[in-house]
Amino acid sequence: MRYFLHLAYDGTQYHGWQIQPRALTVQQELDRCLSQVLRQPVYSLGSGRTDSGVHASHQVAHFDADVPEGLDLPTLLYRLNRALPRDIRAQVLHPVPDKAHARFDATARTYEYHVRLTPDPFAPNFSLYLDRAPDVAAMNEAAAMLLGTHDFTSFSKVKGSEKHYLCTCYEAGWHEVPGGLVFRIRANRFVRGMVRLIVGTLLTVGRGKLSPQEFGEIFRSLNRVHASGAALANGLFLCRVEYPAELLQNVALPTGLPYFSRV
Amino acid sequence: MRYFLHLAYDGTQYHGWQIQPRALTVQQELDRCLSQVLRQPVYSLGSGRTDSGVHASHQVAHFDADVPEGLDLPTLLYRLNRALPRDIRAQVLHPVPDKAHARFDATARTYEYHVRLTPDPFAPNFSLYLDRAPDVAAMNEAAAMLLGTHDFTSFSKVKGSEKHYLCTCYEAGWHEVPGGLVFRIRANRFVRGMVRLIVGTLLTVGRGKLSPQEFGEIFRSLNRVHASGAALANGLFLCRVEYPAELLQNVALPTGLPYFSRV
Repeated sequence: MRYFLHLAYDGTQYHGWQIQPRALTVQQELDRCLSQVLRQPVYSLGSGRTDSGVHASHQVAHFDADVPEGLDLPTLLYRLNRALPRDIRAQVLHPVPDKAHARFDATARTYEYHVRLTPDPFAPNFSLYLDRAPDVAAMNEAAAMLLGTHDFTSFSKVKGSEKHYLCTCYEAGWHEVPGGLVFRIRANRFVRGMVRLIVGTLLTVGRGKLSPQEFGEIFRSLNRVHASGAALANGLFLCRVEYPAELLQNVALPTGLPYFSRV
Repeated sequence: MRYFLHLAYDGTQYHGWQIQPRALTVQQELDRCLSQVLRQPVYSLGSGRTDSGVHASHQVAHFDADVPEGLDLPTLLYRLNRALPRDIRAQVLHPVPDKAHARFDATARTYEYHVRLTPDPFAPNFSLYLDRAPDVAAMNEAAAMLLGTHDFTSFSKVKGSEKHYLCTCYEAGWHEVPGGLVFRIRANRFVRGMVRLIVGTLLTVGRGKLSPQEFGEIFRSLNRVHASGAALANGLFLCRVEYPAELLQNVALPTGLPYFSRV
């Protein structure tokens, strides 16, 4: 039987989502704990990779397993959370059709980047602190250019192995929240490093070092050398992965996590 | 000249506010950094002590110092934050009359206790996780008995050195917030261990192990052996210290910290 697992993690201590040799990753910890609790080898597949240090308030992975008769899913979820490290929390577990795929069936992903403008002792790993407020209007004028279907080569990492750089961006903008700002971007897909490069370059606009027009020129140049440096990973959260309704029938999605519900 | 410093701290790594031998405390770190930045011995005095592991989203301390001419207060605040560990952040600094006193002039203190009902990887040090929602109506029926002026001996620590246990409680109740609950209590003063003993006993009511009437009997017994165990320190925040308006003239108090603005 195939299952979807909805989970959240503090990515501070992990080398990202994806299993890799000689580095602790979220997927590795998840597979280890799923295998332990289900007493069979379990291999999960995520909706997408998150980079080293990036967090998720909503990530989705699928896996195939034989859940023993008499073990109900709430109990399995409880045992999984007992086994998992505290910085990875399983939220919701439900069966899906055999061909459902956490990556290929995802219709949209949303990321948030959190900026604090008040000195904040509580969120050093979950936000970027700026001691001067950036120009939100200018940043949003620039961010609006991202909407629609565009080639995002200018905001991609060199090492990306994507076949193409076309992404359809449904939402992109900065929102004022108590004590800070949140940038939210929703798109059908993201190429490697895209959100942090966009945020880094928008913050350059926010400091007045780049005009919204110049941001547009960089975006349209399709040349990755012009973007500003990537914003630090610690402010970035994958915060929603969307699927067709038929895969999530009767499933109450997790709500109420901080770093997700603020905007 | 006397100054008020408004600050916030993650108390996880500290043995509380108050300086003590052979233990790292918030006051010790603050005095060390104030002395370093001002190049003179500085001794701060807080509005009250917070226990080991307890946080503050708003704490106030006063200190006397000669601030060199030409050093403006925003620059001093900036340098202080550069010197302080990241889990202590100075928010606002302003001069007060020579006789202003952070402890004796405080007219009210507010504490919040944060409970999470959603498995949350982001706040392990800032909340108590409960896997079953407590009975909020019963807890609030009990909490309402705390309002007014009462002897809080039943909810005090044995080691307390208070002259009396009378506190006037202006507000006490549980609030539902996304993914959890927050207990907020505001009073003119608190005796040692009071909030955590109240929260621990209210959560026993919330689990149905104690009725609101039995809570009232414990409260009126003036005997500290009946209360439930203290709730863990990590969910507790000192979140507002109030002073007469004339001490805070023209001062913009810090806002927008998480664990403060949610209710």
